[in-house]
Amino acid sequence: MSAKITLGHGSGGRLTQRLIEDVFMPHLKSAALDEADDAARVSLGSGQLVATTDAFTVRPLFFPGGDIGKLAVCGTVNDLVVCGAVPKCLTAAFIIEEGFETDTLALIAENFARECRNARVEVVAADTKVVERGKGDGVFITVAGIGSLQAGADLGTGRIAEGDAVIVSGDIGDHGAAILLARGELNIQADIASDCASLHDLVLPLLAQFPGAVRFMRDATRGGAATVLNEIASKSGHRVLLEEERIPVKPQVEGLCEMLGLSPWYLANEGTIVLIVDKQAAPAVLRRLRSHQLGRNAAVIGEILEAAQAPAGVYLQTPSRGRRILDALVSDQLPRIC
Amino acid sequence: MSAKITLGHGSGGRLTQRLIEDVFMPHLKSAALDEADDAARVSLGSGQLVATTDAFTVRPLFFPGGDIGKLAVCGTVNDLVVCGAVPKCLTAAFIIEEGFETDTLALIAENFARECRNARVEVVAADTKVVERGKGDGVFITVAGIGSLQAGADLGTGRIAEGDAVIVSGDIGDHGAAILLARGELNIQADIASDCASLHDLVLPLLAQFPGAVRFMRDATRGGAATVLNEIASKSGHRVLLEEERIPVKPQVEGLCEMLGLSPWYLANEGTIVLIVDKQAAPAVLRRLRSHQLGRNAAVIGEILEAAQAPAGVYLQTPSRGRRILDALVSDQLPRIC
Repeated sequence: MSAKITLGHGSGGRLTQRLIEDVFMPHLKSAALDEADDAARVSLGSGQLVATTDAFTVRPLFFPGGDIGKLAVCGTVNDLVVCGAVPKCLTAAFIIEEGFETDTLALIAENFARECRNARVEVVAADTKVVERGKGDGVFITVAGIGSLQAGADLGTGRIAEGDAVIVSGDIGDHGAAILLARGELNIQADIASDCASLHDLVLPLLAQFPGAVRFMRDATRGGAATVLNEIASKSGHRVLLEEERIPVKPQVEGLCEMLGLSPWYLANEGTIVLIVDKQAAPAVLRRLRSHQLGRNAAVIGEILEAAQAPAGVYLQTPSRGRRILDALVSDQLPRIC
Repeated sequence: MSAKITLGHGSGGRLTQRLIEDVFMPHLKSAALDEADDAARVSLGSGQLVATTDAFTVRPLFFPGGDIGKLAVCGTVNDLVVCGAVPKCLTAAFIIEEGFETDTLALIAENFARECRNARVEVVAADTKVVERGKGDGVFITVAGIGSLQAGADLGTGRIAEGDAVIVSGDIGDHGAAILLARGELNIQADIASDCASLHDLVLPLLAQFPGAVRFMRDATRGGAATVLNEIASKSGHRVLLEEERIPVKPQVEGLCEMLGLSPWYLANEGTIVLIVDKQAAPAVLRRLRSHQLGRNAAVIGEILEAAQAPAGVYLQTPSRGRRILDALVSDQLPRIC
């Protein structure tokens, strides 16, 4: 651990993991946080609730496919649904920089509210703070979300077994690529929009329709699909074998990555999730995903193998039949993508 | 509404109110937010929950009596307990500026965690984000809190009636004064510490011991006691008549205010609340408050009158028998006190 915080500590990769483990966990350790999921189960009264929080600091505030207001809702909703929870209510806190345009703030609030209606969540508490010019960056939004655990949702890396199918719900890398272009620092034009979307309607019906078949889900945000898959490998103690040819990536995202020496595996997504699904049920789950507009490009991209022959981790089978390790993100390709 | 956000919009006074009403409420209107309390009731499953959120941007991060970590927990806990809720769990999101010292962050996390243990709340979800140098200010912490409504808690401005006693749980203005001095811009030395404290043990037993006697409570944070009392007057449609002589203020806080032309009525508190209590029960409630270390300076400072002879509002009876209107804070005396 370095003595100062670097942008890499915010990447969602290994440096973020170390920051959390070294600085926060020694103090904030609790049963719920130990699970280190995107959301945690909470027992209050008779109901089983799920709670989550995220700070949104995306730059720029507006980008093709969304803005910080819509993103803040989608990100929170998706953290809940991948845990099998029906999103119920949100809290929202806005940290606003002095001098920020009131009309822009109103537009962000409007987009935030529209996405809340779309995801059928209610805003139950809100706060605003203003910081001096140069002590913030336009607006930061922190959202906490509360959902109620859907009956039959039984998800966890502990349920992952050999032979399970690895599915992504759509093209990977769109959000990260869209943000990169929206910053306007590259002088590249490409038709790429963020995948930013609330996935309640895509994901929750799966759990009811295929009880027990979905082992684990995670939205592939900071650190991208590679980082989520590495977490899955590490927590389940299995190998994840992926077939590079099967991964759905838009040609313009792939082109941008090639030009810049990036990999879509590490680019953030805000409406695309990784699912680990029982092998037998996988074809039906895939059809169900593809029947929804937000899952139309879903694909089986690999399978879970035991870690007997080789250590737990993520392995990428390339078209030339080579096999390489796909590591977790260490530092960031791109700071402040969410 | 001006076209740009000013520091005054973050004061907790009338400008903040207008920002919320003009920019946020048209979009985010919900039954819970309409109540515009510090925390809102949420029905999930069979339990009645209370949820709240606050962003903490206090400057400096450390001050006599506390730091941003302790403050973030106390502020959230107090928002819950004044609504009659037993604090159960928190979520916490840290927005950290690049270059911030890791050791300082660890100290803040430690103080945050210590206060969680003191208030018996569990951290169930957390997030960290890093922003570039000059796009943040050390660290901002946003906390959401969830509590369960205590049996017998029946609080609301609608329950306030003529003759009710107005009580403060302690000296007013300590937090605001401590922050002002801690900034070191005044070249004044005075022994003033923030009142920053979690009030669960002071407040919640009152509700069980004096069922129905406590009509309404509110922690007097941004905007100070005057702003809370004005909200009470405006929402209940009553007059609040205060006796200036009875208000507990530390001599050093009063001295500082006189020197700087400030009023302790508008200085923030982080461990002092205003209670509206049934007249008959008031002496016993006051004794109970004073028996607790955090309520030892509690005082009855006035009473609720009907708004028949004069309009609803807060009136201050001065020692010379004059009576003046004590208005809500319009803009800020002091930005970023919490």
